Amino acid sequence: MDVNYSEIIQKVICEQASIHRSGDVAIETVFDTERHHYLLVQVGWTNGHWVYGCALHLDLIGDKIYIQQNNTECSIAERLVELGIPKDRIVIGFHSPFKRQFTEYAVS
Amino acid sequence: MDVNYSEIIQKVICEQASIHRSGDVAIETVFDTERHHYLLVQVGWTNGHWVYGCALHLDLIGDKIYIQQNNTECSIAERLVELGIPKDRIVIGFHSPFKRQFTEYAVS
Repeated sequence: MDVNYSEIIQKVICEQASIHRSGDVAIETVFDTERHHYLLVQVGWTNGHWVYGCALHLDLIGDKIYIQQNNTECSIAERLVELGIPKDRIVIGFHSPFKRQFTEYAVS
Repeated sequence: MDVNYSEIIQKVICEQASIHRSGDVAIETVFDTERHHYLLVQVGWTNGHWVYGCALHLDLIGDKIYIQQNNTECSIAERLVELGIPKDRIVIGFHSPFKRQFTEYAVS
């Protein structure tokens, strides 16, 4: 790998964190750099309502980045490519293995 | 703190991971020991269905353990108490701040 995949994933998640920050609800960046799980999670109470949800979840498995969850309006795969990750190193995890063959990205 | 809160949280999550492990769906233990976010997440495809969900999410904030999500059948608060955490150091995050005063646990 020419580029540091873990650092790029963390950069993308921090970018999204800055977009999603709002009011009472905390935006947690969760970086497990040992097991290579990276999440962005919204947690908190606002106006009497409990807000909880995973906005983004990326895993580094072997030499591939798996997008396991994307509840943002941004194409995280495209952003990863802009930052130097080849398309054949990106797997859209939430696409079925069958569907993946019809995208530009990796199957597994 | 007499006991290491981070280690106890990780122990509780590992216990639940061993219970929840099943077939094709991965159970990810996510431990961010720098920002003190600890999660257990189910991720994967099984029989053509995508499974994704946070089973457990605990945060260490100051000297308190916040239970932010518990989709297990176990009382994680009771398990934490068994392992030596005082009740006034445990916050049930998903209970509203109003409701918390009527439990044995901390309000914030």
